[in-house]
Amino acid sequence: MTPQRFALTPGEPAGIGPDLCLLLAQHAQPHPLIAIASRDLLVERAAQLALDVRLLAVTPDAWPDTPAAAGSLYVWDTPLRSAVEPGQLAPANATYVLETLTRAGQGCMNGDFAGMITAPVHKGVINEAGIAFSGHTEFLAELTHTAQVVMLLATRGLRVALVTTHLPLKDVAAAITAERLERVTRILHADLVSKFGIAAPRILVCGLNPHAGEGGHLGREEIDVIEPTLERLRSEGLNLIGPLPADTLFTPKYLEHCDAVLAMYHDQGLPVLKYKGFGAAVNVTLGLPIIRTSVDHGTALDLAGSGKIDTGSLQVALETAYQMAEHL
Amino acid sequence: MTPQRFALTPGEPAGIGPDLCLLLAQHAQPHPLIAIASRDLLVERAAQLALDVRLLAVTPDAWPDTPAAAGSLYVWDTPLRSAVEPGQLAPANATYVLETLTRAGQGCMNGDFAGMITAPVHKGVINEAGIAFSGHTEFLAELTHTAQVVMLLATRGLRVALVTTHLPLKDVAAAITAERLERVTRILHADLVSKFGIAAPRILVCGLNPHAGEGGHLGREEIDVIEPTLERLRSEGLNLIGPLPADTLFTPKYLEHCDAVLAMYHDQGLPVLKYKGFGAAVNVTLGLPIIRTSVDHGTALDLAGSGKIDTGSLQVALETAYQMAEHL
Repeated sequence: MTPQRFALTPGEPAGIGPDLCLLLAQHAQPHPLIAIASRDLLVERAAQLALDVRLLAVTPDAWPDTPAAAGSLYVWDTPLRSAVEPGQLAPANATYVLETLTRAGQGCMNGDFAGMITAPVHKGVINEAGIAFSGHTEFLAELTHTAQVVMLLATRGLRVALVTTHLPLKDVAAAITAERLERVTRILHADLVSKFGIAAPRILVCGLNPHAGEGGHLGREEIDVIEPTLERLRSEGLNLIGPLPADTLFTPKYLEHCDAVLAMYHDQGLPVLKYKGFGAAVNVTLGLPIIRTSVDHGTALDLAGSGKIDTGSLQVALETAYQMAEHL
Repeated sequence: MTPQRFALTPGEPAGIGPDLCLLLAQHAQPHPLIAIASRDLLVERAAQLALDVRLLAVTPDAWPDTPAAAGSLYVWDTPLRSAVEPGQLAPANATYVLETLTRAGQGCMNGDFAGMITAPVHKGVINEAGIAFSGHTEFLAELTHTAQVVMLLATRGLRVALVTTHLPLKDVAAAITAERLERVTRILHADLVSKFGIAAPRILVCGLNPHAGEGGHLGREEIDVIEPTLERLRSEGLNLIGPLPADTLFTPKYLEHCDAVLAMYHDQGLPVLKYKGFGAAVNVTLGLPIIRTSVDHGTALDLAGSGKIDTGSLQVALETAYQMAEHL
C-alpha cells in the first residue's frame, strides 16, 4: 500500500494558521503531513513563538514516505509575495494564499495527497487584492470542476449538513426547492457511504418551520416540498427520517441512531453542533472529488504570534481527513 | 410571612399530566402544592399506575398552610365532564381543562397562589370542542388582560427567550420589527429583574441572519433594525450584548457571562436549549402579572397510564416557579 500523504495549508499568513502548524508539529502525525507554506514565514513565526521546529524541505519530485518525527514539519516551500507582520493583512500576499490552495488541491487531484486540511483564510483581503474569492469551498469547487458542494460540520458524535448556507434568513424558505433538497441529500448520502464508510447511512432531516410545520399550521414547505422529496428518495433506498422538529431532533432519542443530521439552514443546525463540539469541530466539504477538511474558526488576527491558541479544531480536522482517507 | 401556595394543573386528562402529578406526590414539596383536577380521575389513574397516593381535598375557603407529606397530594376537586380513558381524547372534557386553568390563573391573580405550574394540554381537542384556543400562553394572557407575553425556555444554566415563536420561517424576517424587538426585550429585562431577582441582567442577543449578517453581506436586518433598537435600549441602561452570530454565541466564552439569550426565532434558540436541558427544561411565560411555568413536553397520549414517564421537566418547572416566587 502506498503511504498516504496529506497537505496542510496554513491559510492567511498574518493569522494563526502558521502558529497552528508549528504547534501541531510538536507531536508526530500518523501519516506524512506536508505544510504548503513559506519556509521563511514559518521560521519567523517559530522564533516569535519561541518554538523549536525542524523544517524539512520537500518537493513533488521527492515526497516523504514516513511521518515526520515530533518536533519536525515537512514544508513544501511556497514563497510569500510580501513580508508578514502577525495581525497585519497584506493584499500582496493574496496570490500566495491562493497558490498554496491550488498546490494542495491539484496534489489531491493527481494523487500526491490523500486529502487536504485547511487553516483559515481571510476573504476580505483577497477581495481587496482585486481577486474574486468567496471562500475555500467555492475555490476548490471551481478548481475541481464541481457543480454542487455540501457543507458538513462535524464533531465527535455529531455530523450536521446544511441544505442552504450563507443566505439572508428571509431568502431561506424560497431556496428550499425540491431540486436543491434532492441534490444535497444525494451528495450527503453518497459521501457518507464513500468517504465515511457507512454502508447504509441513516439521516435525520429537519423541517423548515417550527415544529416541522405542525401539519401545515406553521408553514407548508414540509408538506409541499420536503416530504414528497424525501419520499421519492426513500423509494430509491435512502434511509431518511423526517422532516422532524429541529428543537426536539437534537436529543439522545434521535441522535443515538443517526449518522448525520440534515438541517435546512445555517442557524438551525450549527448552534447545537458548535455548542456540543466547542473548540473541536471540523468543516468538511462534501461533493468534491477530493477529501478536504477545515478548522471551524477564523484567522484570529489578534492572536497570531501570541501562542495563546488551541489546536483542538485542527486536530479534529486532521483526524477526520485521516479517517475519510481510509475509505479511498 | 404568609406561606406560599402553588397551583398545579395536570392539563389534558387523557395524557400523562395526571400521572406526572401522582408520581410527583411520592416526594414532599417545600411548599403547599394544590393540584386542580378531578379527584375521580386521579383515583383511577393512581389505580392504573398501582400508586398509593392519599388525596387530600382542599377548597378556597380552607387552604392548607403546610406542604403535604410524601405520598399525599392536595386536590381542589374539579369535576370531569366525561369519563376518561388514558390516551383517548374527549372533546367533552375541553371545558374541564379550561376550568382548571381559569381556577389556577384567577387564584394567582387574587393572591391564593404564588404561581402556577402547568402540565400539557391538547390544543386540537379543545378546538374540536368548538372553543378557540391556541395554547396556555394565549389563554393566560387573555385571562390576565396582558397584551404581550414572551416565551422563555430554561434549563439549569441556560435561559433562552424568543422574539418570535410559532411563525412559518418565511414570515420571521418581516416580523422582526423595531417595535416588537423593543417590547420583547423590555419584558425580558424587566422580568429577569422582578421575577428572577437579577439586579442588572446581562442579555446576549442573536442576530437574525447567519453570522449576524456579516456586516450586511448576509442580510441587513441587523444594521437596519436590531442594532439601532439595542442601541436605544442600551442608552436607557439595559445591558445588551449583540447582535451576535447564533452559531458561536452558544459557547462557554459567551454563556458564562450572561443571564439570558434572546433568540430571534424558534429554531434558532431552542435546539441548543433542549439539547442541553433534555428532559429537564421548563417553559416560563414572561410579561404576565402572575408566575407561570410549564413542562416543555407534550401530552404523550400513548404513555398515559403506563408509568413509563419521567418527571424531570415537571420538577424543574416547580423549582423554577418556587425560585421566582421568592422575588415576589
